[in-house]
Amino acid sequence: MMRTRPLKVALLGCGVVGSEVARIMTTDAADLAARIGAPVELAGIAVRRAGRARPGVPEHLLTTDAEALVGRGDIDVVIEVVGGIEPSKHLILKAFEQGASVVSANKALLARDGAELHRAAADAGVDLYYEAAVAGAIPLIRPLRESLAGDRVNRVLGIVNGTTNFILDKMDSTGAGYSEALEEATALGYAEADPTADVEGFDAAAKAAILAGIAFHTKVTAADVYREGLTEVTAADIASAKEMGCVVKLLAICERSADGESVTARVHPAMIPLSHPLASVREAYNAVFVEAQAAGRLMFYGPGAGGAPTASAVLGDLVAVCRNKVAGSTGPGDSVYTRLPAKPMDEVVTRYHVSLDVDDRAGVLAQVASTFAEHGVSIDTVRQQGRDGDASLVVVTHRATDAALSATVDKLRALDSVRGVASIMRVEGE
Amino acid sequence: MMRTRPLKVALLGCGVVGSEVARIMTTDAADLAARIGAPVELAGIAVRRAGRARPGVPEHLLTTDAEALVGRGDIDVVIEVVGGIEPSKHLILKAFEQGASVVSANKALLARDGAELHRAAADAGVDLYYEAAVAGAIPLIRPLRESLAGDRVNRVLGIVNGTTNFILDKMDSTGAGYSEALEEATALGYAEADPTADVEGFDAAAKAAILAGIAFHTKVTAADVYREGLTEVTAADIASAKEMGCVVKLLAICERSADGESVTARVHPAMIPLSHPLASVREAYNAVFVEAQAAGRLMFYGPGAGGAPTASAVLGDLVAVCRNKVAGSTGPGDSVYTRLPAKPMDEVVTRYHVSLDVDDRAGVLAQVASTFAEHGVSIDTVRQQGRDGDASLVVVTHRATDAALSATVDKLRALDSVRGVASIMRVEGE
Repeated sequence: MMRTRPLKVALLGCGVVGSEVARIMTTDAADLAARIGAPVELAGIAVRRAGRARPGVPEHLLTTDAEALVGRGDIDVVIEVVGGIEPSKHLILKAFEQGASVVSANKALLARDGAELHRAAADAGVDLYYEAAVAGAIPLIRPLRESLAGDRVNRVLGIVNGTTNFILDKMDSTGAGYSEALEEATALGYAEADPTADVEGFDAAAKAAILAGIAFHTKVTAADVYREGLTEVTAADIASAKEMGCVVKLLAICERSADGESVTARVHPAMIPLSHPLASVREAYNAVFVEAQAAGRLMFYGPGAGGAPTASAVLGDLVAVCRNKVAGSTGPGDSVYTRLPAKPMDEVVTRYHVSLDVDDRAGVLAQVASTFAEHGVSIDTVRQQGRDGDASLVVVTHRATDAALSATVDKLRALDSVRGVASIMRVEGE
Repeated sequence: MMRTRPLKVALLGCGVVGSEVARIMTTDAADLAARIGAPVELAGIAVRRAGRARPGVPEHLLTTDAEALVGRGDIDVVIEVVGGIEPSKHLILKAFEQGASVVSANKALLARDGAELHRAAADAGVDLYYEAAVAGAIPLIRPLRESLAGDRVNRVLGIVNGTTNFILDKMDSTGAGYSEALEEATALGYAEADPTADVEGFDAAAKAAILAGIAFHTKVTAADVYREGLTEVTAADIASAKEMGCVVKLLAICERSADGESVTARVHPAMIPLSHPLASVREAYNAVFVEAQAAGRLMFYGPGAGGAPTASAVLGDLVAVCRNKVAGSTGPGDSVYTRLPAKPMDEVVTRYHVSLDVDDRAGVLAQVASTFAEHGVSIDTVRQQGRDGDASLVVVTHRATDAALSATVDKLRALDSVRGVASIMRVEGE
């Protein structure tokens, strides 16, 4: 039995993702209706500029008045694929007031105001779904929120930004420097004209905040996420990683402390061993490792961006919220029921790869080693290379806090025999 | 606001999985309650034999009368982790009649009678969830059923049986034969005393039927699945795969035909290139590739069996069906709305690796090659090895139907110069 009155959908945004959503809603209308149990109708598409050619998008549905579209009174679901904080936030809140459920791909907004938006959705008795906000087509929010709802997630470790993975993969496979690899990424459309959000880690940090909040049932915002981009990663770092049997990836890492009383979330470049499954994630692909108490280690892999993959995630959510509308129910909402403080980066414990330029003379290694020891940072391996009075020391530590490592590095910098600290990189995935 | 009347759960089965479910329901009761919005109480545990020591399982809850437990009138959810067709089916139907939702890990039953059970659940207005039936802890049913509900799945290709993957991985890494590797798997607890269901592919075929049905929104039962086990795989096959840069895996492959008008589901050993992500799935791990129209290629990886991982999947479903009970709704049920015939194996198109023992004399290769050509099977590569009058020919074909390949092989067997067909194996993943 299918309900015959169609569910009406307002689409906000008609760029790369929005136009794919509009296209699939048109071509696959019969399948969507069968899966939902009711026909679904695209009622209007809000765009910033009218008159632009949008192949496959029904022109008569376009409007530049998003406000009026959301407020017209008969909309069941609003799909927001505009991005940014405003006017998206205002339009989503307005949709809730009107009794519409919302499907969003807006990581920045969810990472900042997720709690407030979830509250507003719950107050209105409607759904807020956003699978597309993290890792494109890869099902991640739903598995964390639902499949693992009976388990205890201890760690989420992933490559959640395709642009930076493409850049690092290029640097690794060709020996290119950062700028050269970024140029190629831009030329191929993997990086935007202004790549800041990607290369400085803002995009990944927003995703880390969303994942940490869902995984640990606590409130985490982008401001709680420690963030380092990859602009400082050099060809020498990549080469050094290779010598260690590692590869450099920009990782988002969310962890619950061993005592369960706090969480950490961070984004930074790190070396991971080639044997780790994340090491073989190439080009612009994304992959996320989830470690849970009972489930063990799971990995989710796929295209992390792009119009069609992101549209797939949006439409999966659309089917879900429409099914709920038909059933007169709502899906699982926010599951924040604990208040675990997000610990600062200082207290994070991991391993480090430190590369030093030093004088090539006797006693330097001993001096460096004792500096590490003074700060309680235990050394795993040291590699020494010397030529013509110059030398380099590459130290890989055992697990230590970021604070202890920073103090060690400050002290190393002050040593006469140390000419400079060439690079510091964390080592993960072991 | 939490509802205070607890949801009552009857657990049927208390083996490796059931005892983990009981343990986690006890230790993590507060978390489960917070996630559900209501406390959840283990009301009884049906076992076949009482009196056995079950550490961590509350003894006063044990009963040998499953029938009475399910029928006592106050059960909200029945968890079935007994397996097999009866009495599980009868108990599940009885649970529905009583208004209880069911969480099951029973692949054999779901693959045979899934449609009937879904109908009974829908008639009773309750849920039937079974994430644990396929690939243990790996979220797969929910992503296929919900995350990809707005997309078109074209292909599911996976390693869904841990026992056989362990055996093949051992054969690959140690050069051992099948029997030796099976012995090791049994000694380590990866294979059961009677390994038939695993090594003959029955377990994987049941999972393939479930996955195909969900992925393609059509009815597929285990009887529709072509099935070959791995008992015929030899150390020579594994070595031959290595020479080709491949590895042998027991794959479950579900495909929608290009015209969208039919489906195929099959389980058999196959060679896949080392560069394919499934090639690096070691030991008893499972991994499933999903290819969808918009999403592209996704992979899901994790532990495919074991008490704790399977319990994780069961408890995720428990939280979901309990949330639905609290909300007075049900989740997405069966989504079978098409009738796509399952085509027989004869019509499946793939590549083949054929190894022949032949006379070592001139003209044999030409004779073999023309036999392939006669049947329209195009050859990709041939490798010839001869010694002392004996020789072997290893032929890898381009894509051809199973029927064409079979006819070719029958004809080859009849050739005077062909002493025997040493092995035939499909080549996938390209």
